[in-house]
Order: sequence, then C-alpha cells, then structure tokens
Amino acid sequence: MAQLRIALAQSNPSVGALPANADRLVEWTRRAADRGAHLVVFPEMFLTGYPVEDLVLRTSFVEASIAAAGSLAERLAAEGLGETPVVVGYVDRANLAPRVGQPKGAPLDAAAVLHRGRVVARTAKHHLPNYGVFDEYRYFVRGDRLPILRLHGVDVAIAVCEDLWQEGGPVAVVAKAGAGLLVVPNASPYERGKEDVRLALVSRRAREAGCALAYVNQVGGQDELVFDGDSIVVSASGELVARAAQFTEELLVTDLELPEARSGGPGTFEVDAGDGTVITVERLELSSSPVQPYEPRDPSVATRLDDLAEVYSALVLAVRDYAVKNGFPSVVLGLSGGIDSALTATIASDAIGPDRVHVVLMPSRYSSEHSLTDARELVDRQGVNAQTVPIGDIVSAFEKEVSLSGLAAENLQARVRGMILMGLSNQHGHLVLTTGNKSELATGYSTLYGDSAGGFAPIKDVPKTLVWELSRWRNAQAGEEGAFLHGFARPPIPENSIDKEPSAELRPGQRDIDSLPEYGVLDRLLDDYVEKDMGSAELIAAGHDPALVARVIRLVDLAEYKRRQYPPGPKITPKNFGRDRRLPITNLWRETTA
Amino acid sequence: MAQLRIALAQSNPSVGALPANADRLVEWTRRAADRGAHLVVFPEMFLTGYPVEDLVLRTSFVEASIAAAGSLAERLAAEGLGETPVVVGYVDRANLAPRVGQPKGAPLDAAAVLHRGRVVARTAKHHLPNYGVFDEYRYFVRGDRLPILRLHGVDVAIAVCEDLWQEGGPVAVVAKAGAGLLVVPNASPYERGKEDVRLALVSRRAREAGCALAYVNQVGGQDELVFDGDSIVVSASGELVARAAQFTEELLVTDLELPEARSGGPGTFEVDAGDGTVITVERLELSSSPVQPYEPRDPSVATRLDDLAEVYSALVLAVRDYAVKNGFPSVVLGLSGGIDSALTATIASDAIGPDRVHVVLMPSRYSSEHSLTDARELVDRQGVNAQTVPIGDIVSAFEKEVSLSGLAAENLQARVRGMILMGLSNQHGHLVLTTGNKSELATGYSTLYGDSAGGFAPIKDVPKTLVWELSRWRNAQAGEEGAFLHGFARPPIPENSIDKEPSAELRPGQRDIDSLPEYGVLDRLLDDYVEKDMGSAELIAAGHDPALVARVIRLVDLAEYKRRQYPPGPKITPKNFGRDRRLPITNLWRETTA
Repeated sequence: MAQLRIALAQSNPSVGALPANADRLVEWTRRAADRGAHLVVFPEMFLTGYPVEDLVLRTSFVEASIAAAGSLAERLAAEGLGETPVVVGYVDRANLAPRVGQPKGAPLDAAAVLHRGRVVARTAKHHLPNYGVFDEYRYFVRGDRLPILRLHGVDVAIAVCEDLWQEGGPVAVVAKAGAGLLVVPNASPYERGKEDVRLALVSRRAREAGCALAYVNQVGGQDELVFDGDSIVVSASGELVARAAQFTEELLVTDLELPEARSGGPGTFEVDAGDGTVITVERLELSSSPVQPYEPRDPSVATRLDDLAEVYSALVLAVRDYAVKNGFPSVVLGLSGGIDSALTATIASDAIGPDRVHVVLMPSRYSSEHSLTDARELVDRQGVNAQTVPIGDIVSAFEKEVSLSGLAAENLQARVRGMILMGLSNQHGHLVLTTGNKSELATGYSTLYGDSAGGFAPIKDVPKTLVWELSRWRNAQAGEEGAFLHGFARPPIPENSIDKEPSAELRPGQRDIDSLPEYGVLDRLLDDYVEKDMGSAELIAAGHDPALVARVIRLVDLAEYKRRQYPPGPKITPKNFGRDRRLPITNLWRETTA
Repeated sequence: MAQLRIALAQSNPSVGALPANADRLVEWTRRAADRGAHLVVFPEMFLTGYPVEDLVLRTSFVEASIAAAGSLAERLAAEGLGETPVVVGYVDRANLAPRVGQPKGAPLDAAAVLHRGRVVARTAKHHLPNYGVFDEYRYFVRGDRLPILRLHGVDVAIAVCEDLWQEGGPVAVVAKAGAGLLVVPNASPYERGKEDVRLALVSRRAREAGCALAYVNQVGGQDELVFDGDSIVVSASGELVARAAQFTEELLVTDLELPEARSGGPGTFEVDAGDGTVITVERLELSSSPVQPYEPRDPSVATRLDDLAEVYSALVLAVRDYAVKNGFPSVVLGLSGGIDSALTATIASDAIGPDRVHVVLMPSRYSSEHSLTDARELVDRQGVNAQTVPIGDIVSAFEKEVSLSGLAAENLQARVRGMILMGLSNQHGHLVLTTGNKSELATGYSTLYGDSAGGFAPIKDVPKTLVWELSRWRNAQAGEEGAFLHGFARPPIPENSIDKEPSAELRPGQRDIDSLPEYGVLDRLLDDYVEKDMGSAELIAAGHDPALVARVIRLVDLAEYKRRQYPPGPKITPKNFGRDRRLPITNLWRETTA
C-alpha cells in the first residue's frame, strides 16, 4: 500500500470571472500545499464558473478558458507550487466535427491536470446531462479520453460529474483499466429531499470502479442554482472516509492508504465503455515511488444538516451570492407584517447582515393595525433599516385619472408598492427582493409589476406551508451561532406574523382563503401537479378533490405569463419555475379536457 | 409513369388544442378530397401544435396525442374520408429505454399515416435539433423507422422536418430504397435573411433522394416563433413545381407525374443510414394500380414577398395569433408620438383591426407639443380608440412621498405610464402591447416595469433602423390590399413620427443620441456582437470603434436582468433575445477584460 494526502477544494467560483477564479485557485493550492497535500482537486468548470450557458458559444470565451488553464500551470510553477498536481475544470475544445449550431471545434466540459508548469493531461465529461435544469447537448460534445496518472506510485483516474450518475462510460473503464483512486470534479446543484442519494451513489460507483473515490463539489449561488458542496471521500469498499460541510467553503484534506500500482507503464489504449462507445485511456507517470511513510491525520467528517437547515442555508447562500456577485451593496423589500416578507427579510439579514437590509412599510387604507405593529416588531428584533411610505395619496391620484374597480383596483395598490421599491432601488442602488412564495407563483395569486417586482426572489420556490416551517425553525435557532446565521438573540420573526391568518389586504377583510384552498391542501395538490407532472386523472386517483383539481390546474396553467416575467430565485425543489419547468404561454392544453 | 394529386395542408394549429386541431384536420381533409387529392399531408406535430415544450414530459398529454391519432383515423372513415390517406404529425412513444429525465417509453416527434379507419404506418424524426430555439434532446428520442407506402402504384416515403436539414439519415435511406415521392411534414420557423435556403435545400435533397419532394410547413404564431408556411413541391431533378404563399393558410393541391414502382413488395428491411445508424424501412401497399389518366391542373406558384414585406407579415401574424389564441378581444398600448409606438399600433391595426386597438396618450411635463399632435394624427389616420391620461399629478403624488432624482425620477414617469396601461388591461381585458425595439432591449435603454411592461412585444426583435424602414415601407403600401394589410387609404404612420429625432422625453430636451450612439452605427455593432457572437478583438478587427465596442458591450452585458423579465415577442432575426440567446444574469465575463 502507498499513502496519499488529497485536498478537495470545495470553493465558490463566479461565472465568467476567469482572473478572479484563477487567483482563488492559486490561493487554495498554496493552502493545500502548506498542509502537505500530494494532489489538489477543484470542482467542474471551476475556472469559468458553472453553468456559463451561451458564453460557451462565444469563441473568445472558450479561447480565454483554454489560455487560462495554460497560464495557470505556469503561474503555479512560478509561485513554487508546481510540484503538487492540480486537477481543475474548465472549457476546452474537441477536435471533433462540430454539431449543427456549434462553433468549429465543439466545446468540451473539460478537466485539466496542471503539473510542473504544464497541462500534462486533460479529460472531458463523457455523459452530457440534458434534462431538468441542464442543457449540455446544446453546448458540449462527449469526452472520449480518460487519463490515469501515476502519482507517488498510485494510479489516479479522473472523471467529470455526470459520468458518476450514468451507467457505463468512465466508471466502467476505470474498473477495466484499474486504478487506486478515482477523483471526480462536480458542479452538482442542491435539491431538496434527495435523502442522501449522493453518498449512496458515490459508494456504489467506488465499488463498481474497484477503487477509492474522491468527489469534490462546487459551493455557491448562481442565479437560480445553489451548489451545496458536501464533498465526499469513500474507500474502495464504499465506506465514508471524509466529508465536507454543506453550503460553505472548505478545503477537505484527507490521508488515504491506497494500493500501489503494479501493471501498465505510460501509454494509451482503447477500452470498450460498455455504453456503445470506446474511451481512450492515457497512462501518465508523474512520480513512481511512494511517499515516505508518515503519520496520517484523522479524517474530517462534517455532520449533516437536517432538512429545514438545508433549505434555509440554501436560501441564505443564494441571496448572499446573488447580491455580492452582482455588486449590490444592500437590499430593499416591502414589509407587510405578513409571513412571506418577514421570512424574506430574515433570510436577507442572515445573508448580508441587517445593517445592509432596508425595509419599507407601505400601509394602505385596507392595512390592519397588526400589519404595522408586526412589521415594526420585526424591525426592532432585527435592527434592519426601515422607513414608512403610505400609499393612500398616490393611489387616489391614480384613481382621479383612471377609474379602476375590483381586481384592477387591488392590483393598483400592489403596483404602487412595487413602484416605490423600484424607485428606492434606482435612487440608492439597493437590490429589490421579491417576497412571493411558490404557492402564489403557481396559482398566479400575485400582481404583475406589483408584489412580483424585483431583482431576486428568495422564496419563489418555497411553498407556503414550508414558509411557515422555515420561520418557526429559524426562530428556534435564535441565539445559536452558525455559518448561515446572523445569530439574533431573540427569535427574529414576530410570532404573530407566523400565527395570523394570511391576507393580501387589498380590500376590506380580505383573506387568502377567499380565493385559494387551505394551504395544506393546496400545496399537496401543487406538489403532485407541478413537481410530479400528474395529469387530472392521476391527481383524482391520488385522492385530490376533482373540483379542486380542475380549479387549481386552471389557475396554474393560466398564470404562465406571469411566471415568465418573474425575477429569478433559488431552486430548492426537484422542479422549480424557471429553468426546470418550461411550458408555452400560448397553451390550449387543459388537463380537464383530456 | 403514374399520376398523383397531392394536397399540402399549410394550416395553423394551436399548441395543446388537440380537439380543435383534429376538427381542423377533418375539415381540410374534406376540402382536399373534394378537390380530388389522392394524398393529404399536414405539418409536423399538427395534432399537438409545435413546440409544446415540457407538455411532452406529461404522460397524460402524450397519451392524449396517441389516442387522438387513432380516433382521428376512425373519424375520417366514419365521415367518408377514409379512402384518402392522410399524413399528420403528432407525439408518440418509442419502445426504447428512456434517457435520464424522460418518462418511461420516451416520446417521439412522430408522423402517422391514417387510412381506412386505422393508423397504417408511423415514423418519427431521426435528427433532433438542439441548437438555437430548439431543445429536442430534452424531449425526444431518435426515430429509426421509414415507411414507404405504395399508393396508386407510386412509392411514397415519409421523413420529418430536421431530417431534411442533416446529412445522412432518412434522405440517404430513400436514395437506397428507392421511392417516387418523399413527403416531409415541417414546423420550421421564419427567420430573416435566409435568402431562399429552403428551396435550395429542398431541391438538393430531392436530387439526393432521387425522387420528387413535397415539403409542407406550418403557418402561424406561437409565443416567440412565427411559422411562415412557404410549402414547396419540387421534381426529382430539383426544379420548383409548386409553392404556397407565406404567412397565410393555404391548401396547396398539385398534380404530379411520378415513376411507377417496380421493385419490392410489402415487408421490412434494414438500411445503413450513412450517419452511423441503421434505419428500418417498412414497405406497405395501400393501392397498387395507377389512377385513371386525367387532365392535370396547372400547379400554383405563389410569388415571394420581399424582405420588408416578410418581416412585417411575420410581426402582424405573431400579434394576431398571440391575441387570438390567448383569447384577448383587444389590445392597448401607450402612444408617445414616437416611431416605436406608432409602428406597434399600425402592426396591431393590421393584425386585429383598428376598432380593437386602444391607444393611450400619457403626456408629462416634459412631453413636447409635437408628441401629442403626432399621436393624434395617427389616431385620426387609423381610427383606433384613443384616450388621454396626463401623468403629472400622479408623478407629483409619488414625489411627495418619496424623493427621487435623476434616472430614478425619469424611470418613475415611465412606470406610471406602465401602471396606467396595466390598470386599463385589468379593467377591460385588453392585451398590453410593449413598444420597445431590439436596440433598446440590447442596451437596456428602457425602464423595467415602465415602457417594458406588457404581455407581448411586437417589435422586440426589430432593430431601430429596421423600425424606420418598416414604417416607410408600410406607409408606401397605403391603399393597397393584401393578406396582412388593413388597407388604410392614407399612409397610416404620420411622416413626422418617422422623420423626427428620437427622444424618450423623460427630461427637458432629452435625445437618444445623448445616451446612445447614432442608431446606424449602434445597430451594426449590435448585429456583430449579439447575432454573430463576436468578441471584442473580432469587433475591433471588423472596424468598430474600440471605445464604442467597450461601452456598448458593457451596456448589453449589464442589461441581461431586464431582458429576463421582458415580455415575449416574435423572433425575426437569426438570434433573438429569449429562446435563442441564453446568458446568465450573474455573469462577470467582460469581453474587454479578455
């Protein structure tokens, strides 16, 4: 057996920021080298950020990515870090004939090995995900090479992300070619309720490959996606060896005892990948003799967050990264006294600190007394910046010029509020946070350019019932410290905002229940229709009330045009509105007519 | 040789409207039968509409499509139309193992042959487009069957849409298997400046297949896409025989003189498709003996529209279908006296008639005298419904509550106008038309929730310089009648709106030229950056001013968040903002930093 100390760089890159990501790679590599690592592995497409979408179709971007990998190898050597091999994801080009719609030399979702000033090996993702939020057939062609590096006497193979999730391909090839360790750079977004599929999968693939497996994932927010980290190292028998924390950066350094390589010197040979393709294995020798025996350190295994802590952490990280990466110094939102805006304000305080959160109380003639007192109570508990702007006179000025009634008059009030927030955003440079939840977004229970106005929508993928759960959970954390917590001494959300009956307060005595079913019932139905894509017959068979099914399906279908103009927000469910669920606006299909 | 009379049903289906599309198919089949057609061909996915996007992922929808094809066959027979074979596109299921993310029995972009009450044959698209506006790897698996029908002694092969655009596959198989006619159902969207690639392609494929080719395309608007019809029949030597009109429905009936089939009775055999795949050819016999000789009619060849007529027709059809298919009785828009809103109003009048067009004049303290007079002049010339709502008092009411200056104050005025239009829409059920052009959308020269508010944006893909060209062109058509013209006696657009200098009039003496370069210069640069995806080095090499390149690229990159919330509008260029150009909002890539 031979020893190896590997460092998994669970780091947070920014899409398009090639220079900044390169600086970050050098800094983290130095930290890894200082801790005596023999190999450093960065996430998938770390140099470019992920996903870069149509930037891949721009020649200048792909060329910059390729150049960045080369110059990084030289820079690492120049800064005395050339002896520690670095595996990093970036975009490269294939020498294949391009597919229609792709530029010459189609792009690859690639990983490079940087060593002693050179890119000594490169590989690329073999299986391209093209479902859910992924569109990789649009951008990439399939990788067909698998490098196996002889490092201190251990054979180290490299595969990329999706290649771990599919049958056949690189994992099957590693099993045939033989290796002591398989390292896998990933950019795998968080999704709720996966249980622990990731560990189960990594363990299974390690057993299939017949070697230890090191899985390194990106961490950070990118528009709708939140990458949760949770990097994992397992043994050849699939047992968990080390694990990084979720939703936070971590350099996970692990000592492994791995079989010494016997067979096969440098050279290339072809292996049937078992999926109808052939993969070329490239053996390289970086260093043949094992390292001097040393005293291994205890591996670090982070404790897993529970379900609500995961979701809340994802929302906080998404808001922080959207604001920071887009250069917003502060955020502004309307605080109604209701639970949605209360939770949104709390997430914002935890993300960037209450001193950078600005809330606006915008009472109307229909606002109840408790709305203002509950809102003021939150301001006191969190110490956010607050101002009050009554909307009555503005609404009256409108009604003098245009006579509106019913829904049009209700929407007018919501739009006056949206306009005040946008005005303050333009004046002071705040990012406007939209406070709508997924149940509202699904049923169209919101006003276009009113409460739906804003740049980022923290809870747009959070059903109303989960909004309440998260609020109670967050209050229960009061006083405790944590990576994602601001650590308020008192429960940050007024109990009355959680407990009172929901109302939009756009007309006297209005209650959500007047327009929508009870949220417990609604959210179960929405989960089956939106997440599970059940048709009306299936929904009724699943026990939902037929009349309610017809009514809710119609609401959801007709609200598509509103969702299309809604700001982005973090995906936490298996199917969010946005990248995940893509329906036409002009759509005469009605489940109930089927 | 044997005679055959084929009918190409260049018809306008609606996405999801399975019952309505089926009724339309029966009606058009009857018209074809009345005219003595021996074969009727409908467009790709005519039964379901196209594109249906994620509806394909819903089991109930796919099952409904399959059931609809079967019941249509029975219904045609029951209505005495069973003897005329009908080729129609729909969604079916493959018997293949599904790809990840796809439901069991992955969907096919299929075409069925309906005859004597049964689905006698089916095929499916072999080449799946996954570039530009197409995402078919997300939805479909590859078809691997090619039916060849013996009809009145002639062998008729069937392929679907993209199979005509790619090398190898069905066309190569037809060449090897031999046929007298290849019919191809299509759903091929309009795009400007394609010259006449379609005819060139159809001619080339006919020569490659060694038989006559009948290409039938859908016509109509579907959200961002406009299908232009332009169905084509060519001979085996690739000469144009018949052609349908553009942007309008037409039943194109053509008499053909085709070689009589000799070889091969019923049965199936496999053919190498020349693209690394194998396709199973299925020979069927519907009728063996040629029809009694008859006097052929002269084929109909529609005259092609010129460039500006094409674009204008596309915009008119898109607006009409978006309004009609989504059930809007009328439209409303703000009329500023400027050229963008003037052209938008004219397109709307041509699309649904001036009596269903409502315009609102919303003067502010900064509106010039000519703005009102030019707007009133258009109202007089077109006879649209008009009202005037001054915004001064509403703006003042806002400014009493929130103090705004500079850009924030300018945006406020635009938002007050957007809010008035949305209020009228909510009150009266009008569709709000957004009047922004592509040059503004590219550079972010618009106000979110202000002039960008609305349900549909007719000229969002039209650069400013083309806005002027289209306006002059439309005025020159005054008095003439045409499928897409309302036929105003006088030029519908006031000359002063075309000739005056553009201004947003949000502050005293404001001119576009204060914030943007001259539009001729800007549009050429935007075309190279947005359409052609050139990097800054390429742009400078192409002769654009370096300082301007840096400035404009920055404007375009930073406006992505505005475009993401912009309403849909018809795609007329090779790369529209929306389905076509997909960039991250959080994007730190700057060409100028490369």
